Amino acid sequence: MSASALLKSRVARPSYLKKLAKAEDLIEHFPHNSWIGWSGFTGVGYPKKTPTALADHVEKNGLQGQLKYNLFVGASSGAETENRWARNNMIERRSPHQVGKDIAKGINNGNIKFFDKHLSMGPTDLVYGYYTKNNPSKKLDVAVIEATAITPEGGIVPGASVGASPEIIQMADKIIIEVNTASPDLTGLHDICMTDVPPYKKPYLVMSPEDRIGLPYIPVDPEKVVAVVESDYMDQTQPNAEEDETSRKIAGNLVEFLQHEVKHGRLPENLTPLQSGIGNIANAVVGGLASGGANFKNLKVWTEVLQDSFLDLFDSGNLDFATATSIRFSPDGFKRFYENYERYAPKLLLRSQAVSNSPEIIKRLGVIGMNTPVEVDIYAHANSTCVMGSRMLNGLGGSADFLRSSKYSIMHTPSTRPSKTDPTGVSCIVPMCTHVDQTEHDLDMVVTEIGFADVTGMSPRERAREIIKKCAHPDYQPILTDYLDRAEFECLRKGWGHEPHLLWNAFDMHKHLNEHGTMKIPAWDASRSTFAA
Amino acid sequence: MSASALLKSRVARPSYLKKLAKAEDLIEHFPHNSWIGWSGFTGVGYPKKTPTALADHVEKNGLQGQLKYNLFVGASSGAETENRWARNNMIERRSPHQVGKDIAKGINNGNIKFFDKHLSMGPTDLVYGYYTKNNPSKKLDVAVIEATAITPEGGIVPGASVGASPEIIQMADKIIIEVNTASPDLTGLHDICMTDVPPYKKPYLVMSPEDRIGLPYIPVDPEKVVAVVESDYMDQTQPNAEEDETSRKIAGNLVEFLQHEVKHGRLPENLTPLQSGIGNIANAVVGGLASGGANFKNLKVWTEVLQDSFLDLFDSGNLDFATATSIRFSPDGFKRFYENYERYAPKLLLRSQAVSNSPEIIKRLGVIGMNTPVEVDIYAHANSTCVMGSRMLNGLGGSADFLRSSKYSIMHTPSTRPSKTDPTGVSCIVPMCTHVDQTEHDLDMVVTEIGFADVTGMSPRERAREIIKKCAHPDYQPILTDYLDRAEFECLRKGWGHEPHLLWNAFDMHKHLNEHGTMKIPAWDASRSTFAA
Repeated sequence: MSASALLKSRVARPSYLKKLAKAEDLIEHFPHNSWIGWSGFTGVGYPKKTPTALADHVEKNGLQGQLKYNLFVGASSGAETENRWARNNMIERRSPHQVGKDIAKGINNGNIKFFDKHLSMGPTDLVYGYYTKNNPSKKLDVAVIEATAITPEGGIVPGASVGASPEIIQMADKIIIEVNTASPDLTGLHDICMTDVPPYKKPYLVMSPEDRIGLPYIPVDPEKVVAVVESDYMDQTQPNAEEDETSRKIAGNLVEFLQHEVKHGRLPENLTPLQSGIGNIANAVVGGLASGGANFKNLKVWTEVLQDSFLDLFDSGNLDFATATSIRFSPDGFKRFYENYERYAPKLLLRSQAVSNSPEIIKRLGVIGMNTPVEVDIYAHANSTCVMGSRMLNGLGGSADFLRSSKYSIMHTPSTRPSKTDPTGVSCIVPMCTHVDQTEHDLDMVVTEIGFADVTGMSPRERAREIIKKCAHPDYQPILTDYLDRAEFECLRKGWGHEPHLLWNAFDMHKHLNEHGTMKIPAWDASRSTFAA
Repeated sequence: MSASALLKSRVARPSYLKKLAKAEDLIEHFPHNSWIGWSGFTGVGYPKKTPTALADHVEKNGLQGQLKYNLFVGASSGAETENRWARNNMIERRSPHQVGKDIAKGINNGNIKFFDKHLSMGPTDLVYGYYTKNNPSKKLDVAVIEATAITPEGGIVPGASVGASPEIIQMADKIIIEVNTASPDLTGLHDICMTDVPPYKKPYLVMSPEDRIGLPYIPVDPEKVVAVVESDYMDQTQPNAEEDETSRKIAGNLVEFLQHEVKHGRLPENLTPLQSGIGNIANAVVGGLASGGANFKNLKVWTEVLQDSFLDLFDSGNLDFATATSIRFSPDGFKRFYENYERYAPKLLLRSQAVSNSPEIIKRLGVIGMNTPVEVDIYAHANSTCVMGSRMLNGLGGSADFLRSSKYSIMHTPSTRPSKTDPTGVSCIVPMCTHVDQTEHDLDMVVTEIGFADVTGMSPRERAREIIKKCAHPDYQPILTDYLDRAEFECLRKGWGHEPHLLWNAFDMHKHLNEHGTMKIPAWDASRSTFAA
């Protein structure tokens, strides 16, 4: 194959040009039950041609369920590749995160063996050999990594995400590089560290979000590169979730709290670095910080993913620097970003997820961590992953990396969500979470559109009163207070009163939702609530 | 007051000798509702004279419940002081840990507002101002710290623990120092860092357990020292829990696993640094490593507390270095330690709990973390703190500091514990933990006397089969398998099958225990187990 002029301009390692291939000719590298890794994080920077060629091959030959793979991607890959693989039953095992309707369906119907892991740790555990110990080679068989350029050393300059690519490359026996010539060359935007294994692991010497501690590319062993494929279309992203009145109120409560902390000397005037999750609340929060009213200047961001609203924050002049492992903009956001690249790029660094989500750095910087849960309970545990304790949404992501180690560990959520029949049928404040991803020992503050509960320094019973009063929807305040009153009475009487629960009733609101379409139970079932002597 | 010759030999700061006082003359520094901090960790290095004088004062004047304090101690203080305070209802608020029958009683009957926090984080949150924000001064009013010597700079050389003393001293308006002349002078045994607040926080540049990164004493602002009291008796510790057949079997399974990991190249021959919790299993594990059969050499220890069994490990010649925040030996152990101090001391460093339990360092060193839970569930969540979801035992301690960040995150537990009527009435493997302190995302391995379950890389349903098969007691294997089969059937049918639970039955084994004295339920209540369409 001969290389296009554009491809040649991106590949500075001559030997790689001898390995040019078409994706459809690479099927042989992917026997059934291979252990493989892809680049990609939050649907950007993922390989496009090879996964598509494999899906074509499966569909053309009716191999659904017969070619299945153990697939590791930093977080989520492209919807058009990963969802299609899931629909074709091509995924045997998947970790540590996923986003996509068909993937979630495959996970929850038993087709896909999925496990979610802290996004800081997934890559580490991969390098420890924990995930590939059942592969005879103890390695990943093949990695497929998207690049926007290749350095003279043969290193990979990633695209809009770094994710787990460094560790996937470290662990791979063979590497296929997809050079995306439709994307701009992003050389200079990345700061890459590899993951050493103890006793050879070093400190991450980051003292401020702008600190560079690595290389601008991912080093690669050139002899492992088995093919280079040209990729010719951009990341397929979706528009961002819209702010609504509820998310704006939540953002308002949060901004007010941060101002309060500055006033009391617990935060400097420019705050500490911010982390913000994904979704409409996160967008509203960042939007709230960008608006004139908040009046925070010289902000810095240490986060996992940047959404469009961070472009507004840059444009407001109040954001001095941001770093993440992925820029997951909308199509319009990417247009804006690339059109003004010279302005944004000097204020931005992309790192591996092992670094962006590193507890070490998050703790040192004193990050303000903000994420959205499925539900929070009255004692400040949170469920980030499993609806009704069982059904996987997307996975843990980086929520616990940030919540455990942040200076301010904040969960923001609407007080209720609609059920099919009741606009406030699901309370996001519950007596006991049906699945716990974040413990009471990690969560400092809960904020809803109702108000802000700072529960630092509080005992569980104080916390419960505060969360119900400040965060629960008025429809649920009496129900939750009644639970707490009864639980206190029962447990204090027994001498079990540290964190009082009616253990046999703890999920009654969820049961009522399942059976009656709303969590508004008429009364707590006292016949089940007492403990034996 | 004039100083004894012994006291003079310990206090190298002349101005402190002008502040000599008797504890009973210091009552005025402790008005009702003061915010105070003590040194101490796992019942060693705690102040003795001042707390005792305050308890005498309360008892003599019938002030029980009228002089109450907000009390912060790194972990547990001395039984004879803290339990007595609890009996006298002198504790209004307590964090982040406790050990003691009367304290636990006060917590669970509602007298004491207790909250437990990761032991690495309690001191940090204290310095952030989170715990004292309701005190008008925003500080701790007074700290009482035990020293074994005072340096010329006025710094404190601690005793057998460091704990949270550095941060308590940082946050205190007044400092009372108890110089313990009955204890040996332990100058040189400590490596002390203070806790800076972001944006001024620095990396902990520890690359190996023996690395010194601080000072051999705790720096003190001499003008804050209001009194120096001579203390004249040793730490009152108890004998260690005895190994039994079960704990020896657990230790055997664990040693076999570590040998397996070395064989497969996932661990170096001298392992990575070890952390071991407290109790008879931990003792048996360390004993197992010390015995000739295990054949591990040049071991190092990075842990929170050293028990007597570590002296055996030193004496075996296989332990090169150990570091912790506390040496909690038995009376015989302390005798042995001090008689051979010249031999042990060069291989030992005591650090603050913010450092000994630092997730940053634990992750970097790749620690092998081993702790004992209340219960573990089939999906690998663990309860470390609250029996029946409500009753506080001792608090979280450092269990989650180590489990989250260790390379090997191991829970070791007997498969069952006795109830009042059934020697195997309580299964330590349950369908769902009644309180979650460690999540499935943190726990890698579970070991009981039955066997060892390495669940890394497994989906929840695979994990559940493995934990039941390898770790559950034979009496409970059919009960737990039946639960899992039913939960899989119900949840997969609904498309909720990632982590299948019968949510309305999840605590039925606990309910049966409460009502019938054993978790051996005859059958799962199918009438409650189905979900609505």
